[in-house]
Amino acid sequence: MRSMKRYLSEFLGTFAMIFCGCGAMTIDEITGGSISHVGVAITWGLIVMAMIYAFGERSGAHFNPAVTVGFAVSNLFPWKDVPKYILFQTLGAFGAVLLLWFLFPESESFGHSYPATGFEPYKAFVLELILTFFLMLTIINVSTGSKEVGTMAALAVGSVILLEAMFAGPMTKASMNPVRSLAPAIVSGQLEDLWLYLTAPFLGSVLAIGAHRFIK
Amino acid sequence: MRSMKRYLSEFLGTFAMIFCGCGAMTIDEITGGSISHVGVAITWGLIVMAMIYAFGERSGAHFNPAVTVGFAVSNLFPWKDVPKYILFQTLGAFGAVLLLWFLFPESESFGHSYPATGFEPYKAFVLELILTFFLMLTIINVSTGSKEVGTMAALAVGSVILLEAMFAGPMTKASMNPVRSLAPAIVSGQLEDLWLYLTAPFLGSVLAIGAHRFIK
Amino acid sequence: MRSMKRYLSEFLGTFAMIFCGCGAMTIDEITGGSISHVGVAITWGLIVMAMIYAFGERSGAHFNPAVTVGFAVSNLFPWKDVPKYILFQTLGAFGAVLLLWFLFPESESFGHSYPATGFEPYKAFVLELILTFFLMLTIINVSTGSKEVGTMAALAVGSVILLEAMFAGPMTKASMNPVRSLAPAIVSGQLEDLWLYLTAPFLGSVLAIGAHRFIK
Amino acid sequence: MRSMKRYLSEFLGTFAMIFCGCGAMTIDEITGGSISHVGVAITWGLIVMAMIYAFGERSGAHFNPAVTVGFAVSNLFPWKDVPKYILFQTLGAFGAVLLLWFLFPESESFGHSYPATGFEPYKAFVLELILTFFLMLTIINVSTGSKEVGTMAALAVGSVILLEAMFAGPMTKASMNPVRSLAPAIVSGQLEDLWLYLTAPFLGSVLAIGAHRFIK
Repeated sequence: MRSMKRYLSEFLGTFAMIFCGCGAMTIDEITGGSISHVGVAITWGLIVMAMIYAFGERSGAHFNPAVTVGFAVSNLFPWKDVPKYILFQTLGAFGAVLLLWFLFPESESFGHSYPATGFEPYKAFVLELILTFFLMLTIINVSTGSKEVGTMAALAVGSVILLEAMFAGPMTKASMNPVRSLAPAIVSGQLEDLWLYLTAPFLGSVLAIGAHRFIK
Repeated sequence: MRSMKRYLSEFLGTFAMIFCGCGAMTIDEITGGSISHVGVAITWGLIVMAMIYAFGERSGAHFNPAVTVGFAVSNLFPWKDVPKYILFQTLGAFGAVLLLWFLFPESESFGHSYPATGFEPYKAFVLELILTFFLMLTIINVSTGSKEVGTMAALAVGSVILLEAMFAGPMTKASMNPVRSLAPAIVSGQLEDLWLYLTAPFLGSVLAIGAHRFIK
Repeated sequence: MRSMKRYLSEFLGTFAMIFCGCGAMTIDEITGGSISHVGVAITWGLIVMAMIYAFGERSGAHFNPAVTVGFAVSNLFPWKDVPKYILFQTLGAFGAVLLLWFLFPESESFGHSYPATGFEPYKAFVLELILTFFLMLTIINVSTGSKEVGTMAALAVGSVILLEAMFAGPMTKASMNPVRSLAPAIVSGQLEDLWLYLTAPFLGSVLAIGAHRFIK
Repeated sequence: MRSMKRYLSEFLGTFAMIFCGCGAMTIDEITGGSISHVGVAITWGLIVMAMIYAFGERSGAHFNPAVTVGFAVSNLFPWKDVPKYILFQTLGAFGAVLLLWFLFPESESFGHSYPATGFEPYKAFVLELILTFFLMLTIINVSTGSKEVGTMAALAVGSVILLEAMFAGPMTKASMNPVRSLAPAIVSGQLEDLWLYLTAPFLGSVLAIGAHRFIK
């Protein structure tokens, strides 16, 4: 029962994060740029920060399979809970994108992630890997066990999301999160480069755990 | 007497919030976009954050009937004080909009809330409901009793206001607050979609209290 | 001797604040808008926040005669130190503007404050009064005695400066500070509406102290 | 062994800072301004803030030879460790720029620092000196010994970087850091004004230590 509450927290937090973040990209798309790239990046960063404040104590506020796996690799989170966390994160992401589809059916992307024209997929893979490496490196340094809790964690992790969405968004949409890319890809039917968004974040996260062990 | 000081805090905080937030929209309107959508959203978020710092200890810094009702539904705030809180919030909102009218009589909206052209009112209702749901879900998780106090509450709540104004502003103006919509609607004489702004926030707030109970 | 260190802190903090804030406006002017209105407002807010972190413990980080007088009226700051604080704030402001003049002689304003075309001076007076009222109301609520110290004060006061510069900048430049307006006016030789910037902030600050007493 | 971990922290933090900051400028360049000046400044500020959270406890989060020398001059950091800190900061900077070169070979600058057209190099020298003076003055006031640790240090230092990049970026790129300028200059082969970026930050930092001693 107690576990279920943690899973529901992951569901709600991921739902809010994807609804606001992908929602910002969707509304920016259908209104011809009314939010602007800067506005989209700020939205992503602040919703992550706010959800860490709201749910950090309960579930640890992962909202991202790559983060959950990173904590498991570092032995801070039990492997047996990983599938359930990922399941509820996935449900949250799909719930959010389906709601965006209901509200804005004219959208063609729902915040879909893809590499910029001319930016080769293998480079997008490398960039997503690096982005998740920095993200997980920050998370592991500011978290308490496997939980992102408190003012420092929320500020630090929200800031990394904001700044990486800001500078890398134009090249890869700065996903850093498999379910954040999966749900819009399925709902919009654009699966072409999905493989890289499903793999690079895990690799980046695990490398961050390795680097962290090395220097701690 | 002590109660009166709390009411006056709600009055002043709501007054400041509406004057700055609707003021940003008014000045952006009459100067042809000098502040920009990003600037308007930042103004809304930061004035809420600052007023929580200033008045959180005293009144709890609700500034919003939907928040006050949410706290009452969760038994953290006495129902008998609800009408007085709402009265002073309403006075603050009208005071602010009347002052904007004095300063900028050429404005046609004073930050009036309305759905974007082509965005059906029932969808605007759903979106406002969701926005207030996320807002109250954050507030109830970071507040102390019925009070929004301290660095964490101010940062978290201000951030939610900022990011929701940022991504949803182009569709519904991201009101989340009945009195914030009521005052400009009355003063500018545009009452068409007012009903949705007077109902959706209460529903979203109560649903957030329900969800919170379920996972806590 | 100890007092001299406090005065020097006021000098340095005011110098940094005016150099960065008026510098942003100067560089935006001579480069044809490269920084943007949003960038200018962010600069003002963050330099105030940073200088409160740096000097709050020492001098209280007033950097503004209207704030110093507000604290004196509320009996939290000795009247006999007011002239010396104002003197060093004035020196800091002139030092900063003269350095901007050396670096950017082609500027015609150095961040000079003036009401927007068509915005009557008496309305500018009212708006500056209200801006300073909200600023001092926030300061008096988050300060420790007459000092702005710590994370909360820095965040709250920096945010008020940022948001007021953001929404009111297009109408009056959002000065809220007599020396911040005096130095660019003298150096650029534009004294026309200076009187309102030298008076409204004091009145707004004193009214905020009154309102604070009333509700505390 | 323990020292090596501190050096690696400086390497990783500087690597992340330069990759994200110069990466923002590089991507803005090759995409024709998709990030905007405001977005670039936000990126610089937040990556510094996040890396202070991540590595402040370990290495002190200098990431800048001018900061390391400033701490050494103030006797808070041992002179014998200065060369090693600078070595690892330099390696981090070159690693980051080389990775940017691999990902974005079409770039012509990789975030290269240079004075704006018509802005004489001696004035750029003075401006960089002042920027680093304010930066080090803030750092020395919020740091614990020679370490930048905790919410206050991260917020204050990140904010100074953000605001100085915001207002001074159009004139000198707001480097404040010899290795941040060295690596892009070497990789892009543009050495013309490099001398000023290698000298002004040291002078500004040492002057800040002097001013700090004077008023403390």
